[in-house]
Amino acid sequence: MEINSADALNTFRGPADRFSGAVWLEELATNPNVDLHAYRVNFAPGGRTAWHAHAGGQLLLVVAGVGYVQERGGPVREIRAGDVVTIAPGEEHWHGATEDSFMCHIAFQHAASDEAITWLDHVRDGAA
Amino acid sequence: MEINSADALNTFRGPADRFSGAVWLEELATNPNVDLHAYRVNFAPGGRTAWHAHAGGQLLLVVAGVGYVQERGGPVREIRAGDVVTIAPGEEHWHGATEDSFMCHIAFQHAASDEAITWLDHVRDGAA
Repeated sequence: MEINSADALNTFRGPADRFSGAVWLEELATNPNVDLHAYRVNFAPGGRTAWHAHAGGQLLLVVAGVGYVQERGGPVREIRAGDVVTIAPGEEHWHGATEDSFMCHIAFQHAASDEAITWLDHVRDGAA
Repeated sequence: MEINSADALNTFRGPADRFSGAVWLEELATNPNVDLHAYRVNFAPGGRTAWHAHAGGQLLLVVAGVGYVQERGGPVREIRAGDVVTIAPGEEHWHGATEDSFMCHIAFQHAASDEAITWLDHVRDGAA
């Protein structure tokens, strides 16, 4: 059993090949011996992920603000604090803040997915 | 992709064979096709789980209040809002509120763990 306190989290800027705009990630739980990893992700207005897919799927718990999520071929959908998004294994998608809102979500995925995320192209402005 | 809003959550009382005291669970994400499930669990003062173990481990994100967590053979440890607990696969443990505080956490686990949780005896008062 391992307890991480809020003041001991590793916090880093989302890298430019995987995120656009200003995005900060916090490692909540990344123990390599447990196949459950969690990050808190803070998107400044206009910040978003690139298109990507998780081999084992992903859960997003929206903690604050208003954002967007889109699956490939589907409509851009608005998400708000309190919403929970379940993304299927292999589903290509992106998520991020709206143009005018900060958005924070907790992302929960398999540990193995850290090596099993397929990162794709950046989202074109027309898509949102 | 599935989006659940806060007003559509299934909320239920923790059953007496698995919880003691007043505990309410909310199903945040329980899609059977994604091996990642999440619950929010609200423990009234003195509320706690029985001893149990998850075949795939578990993450607990403490959202509010002050509580306890203990692994078999270890000390009772205090957890507070902002703490993240990583529980190893198969590790026998319990968690709950302190005697004087309400405690709320989000629990993340494998979907398969819904059938792979080993529920054991209730926590004896001396243990906390």
